[in-house]
Amino acid sequence: MKIFVSTVPFADVDPRPREVLREVGAELVVNPLNRKLTESDLDALIGDYEILIAGTESISESVLEKAKRLKLIVRVGIGLDSVDLRAARKRDILVSYTPDAPSPAVAELTIGLMIDLLRSTHVSNLRMHKGEWYRYFGRRLSEVIIGVIGAGRIGSRVIKHLRGFNCRQILVNDIDTQISLPYDPTCTLERTTKEQIYQEAEVISLHVPLTPKTRSLISEKELGQMRPDALLINTSRGGIVNEQDLFEALKKQQIGGAAIDVFEQEPYTGNLSTLENCLLTAHMGSMSVDCRTQMEIEACQEAVRFIKGEPLESLVPDAEYNHG
Amino acid sequence: MKIFVSTVPFADVDPRPREVLREVGAELVVNPLNRKLTESDLDALIGDYEILIAGTESISESVLEKAKRLKLIVRVGIGLDSVDLRAARKRDILVSYTPDAPSPAVAELTIGLMIDLLRSTHVSNLRMHKGEWYRYFGRRLSEVIIGVIGAGRIGSRVIKHLRGFNCRQILVNDIDTQISLPYDPTCTLERTTKEQIYQEAEVISLHVPLTPKTRSLISEKELGQMRPDALLINTSRGGIVNEQDLFEALKKQQIGGAAIDVFEQEPYTGNLSTLENCLLTAHMGSMSVDCRTQMEIEACQEAVRFIKGEPLESLVPDAEYNHG
Repeated sequence: MKIFVSTVPFADVDPRPREVLREVGAELVVNPLNRKLTESDLDALIGDYEILIAGTESISESVLEKAKRLKLIVRVGIGLDSVDLRAARKRDILVSYTPDAPSPAVAELTIGLMIDLLRSTHVSNLRMHKGEWYRYFGRRLSEVIIGVIGAGRIGSRVIKHLRGFNCRQILVNDIDTQISLPYDPTCTLERTTKEQIYQEAEVISLHVPLTPKTRSLISEKELGQMRPDALLINTSRGGIVNEQDLFEALKKQQIGGAAIDVFEQEPYTGNLSTLENCLLTAHMGSMSVDCRTQMEIEACQEAVRFIKGEPLESLVPDAEYNHG
Repeated sequence: MKIFVSTVPFADVDPRPREVLREVGAELVVNPLNRKLTESDLDALIGDYEILIAGTESISESVLEKAKRLKLIVRVGIGLDSVDLRAARKRDILVSYTPDAPSPAVAELTIGLMIDLLRSTHVSNLRMHKGEWYRYFGRRLSEVIIGVIGAGRIGSRVIKHLRGFNCRQILVNDIDTQISLPYDPTCTLERTTKEQIYQEAEVISLHVPLTPKTRSLISEKELGQMRPDALLINTSRGGIVNEQDLFEALKKQQIGGAAIDVFEQEPYTGNLSTLENCLLTAHMGSMSVDCRTQMEIEACQEAVRFIKGEPLESLVPDAEYNHG
């Protein structure tokens, strides 16, 4: 079996993902461009590989058309917005993913970004590096109303961490309106609408997948509903926040600030980088050594199961095929 | 009674500290220079005030010599390194402080700085603002050995927060070698020497007061004992870390990085600001609206008790007079 690994870095810090594949003697080629592939890169590279261990690059119908021998795609991660699932199914290409492994790292980075925004750590650091001294007033997590949109694997972990900081009011919105929230006498956890979160929350954190329904979820209208001190965090997927609208809102100081880890086009080259009140990181949510290694190992284990003809364990559920 | 408030900002966001003093009709003057005062500023300004509500500026024997009518100093905060306590006692000047109020804000900022350093948030943000994209690998709090030096009001809160992140190994050093640590089956909390922390910890956080014993606690020798991936955090007091030695260690990448909120001279103008791997903030540890307001209110309440002839409630304990 020939395997193409398009996601990079791969087995960079910890060699175990490669060792998993060695067991079945699979022929492995890792993305020779060592960056996120464009659709035309992947068109050219996919050749006669039978298994694709994929990152977030676009796996469109056109790519699948070229991938004559492809039988299995394993996404290293959770987002499926990049994969044309129905086109894959039409060609009998199976799609698996590793939905649990990234969560702890993404949730922890999100908490760090919340504290950074609340305390202006990033702005102070930029200014100190220019020789400027200004003591910013901040707020603690327990002083503010926090809105969490999406309470799945990652959002629910974020909520758990927040409770450890004695947060008093957390507003939660999820597509599952019956989602059960833990009871906590010291913290009001309230299921509510997205609109209430936009209007009331001082920190708004997004933990939803990118689907046709969530594309541009946060645009001019939603930003316009937010408080002037609202802080927006996106560690989920680029495309959920309209970047140009966010730029305008931050430029006008219509909201207090934002922390953005994910972008419509990556590597990101847009104008948010001209704004001091926008904390930017390079899609590093899942990039902790332990979580990334776990994701890669799980993806390789799924490939090994496929090669050995064993039942797959992390196939994308049918419900995911119904978006859009 | 005439009160001079040298600490700034004062009652900037929340007016309640001023209201506390209004009750006794005290005459209040706030630092007209609106920055941290030098010794000679304070020499010139102290005049015939009877109460000084102080920040971290130096209140030396020379200042006290000028302060002919001074009867009470209330430090807004916990550190006493700036006050010549014995010189004050010699002149029958009482000294109070607000040791508890800053702790929650300092502890929370410390956790944010730990996540920043572990995930390279600050470096990614600096580079993204220059148009550079690089996905840094990071570590989660639960992946690393954390060393906490000083387990008093702030250090113990840091430890409590860390346990909420499922940290597995926390090494603790305190001047009180019998200090009791909570039992936690999921986390090894180990009392140990500072040397073991320097040698083994991947994150080292300082929560000690500045005293003759802790001055330059972290210098060339201690930095030389640290792991190449060690991350050092100082949210306690400038002077505890030798800044020139830290500069050399970071420049040579002898350690992994540092986050420094407090400096020997503030405002800070030194060469750490030339280093990308040094996260710098402008003494903002206690600067959350709630904690700062609480500190100011408590300081004003102590002044009111003094004016009314009531017993003081937050006098600096005798033990503090024995340092140095």
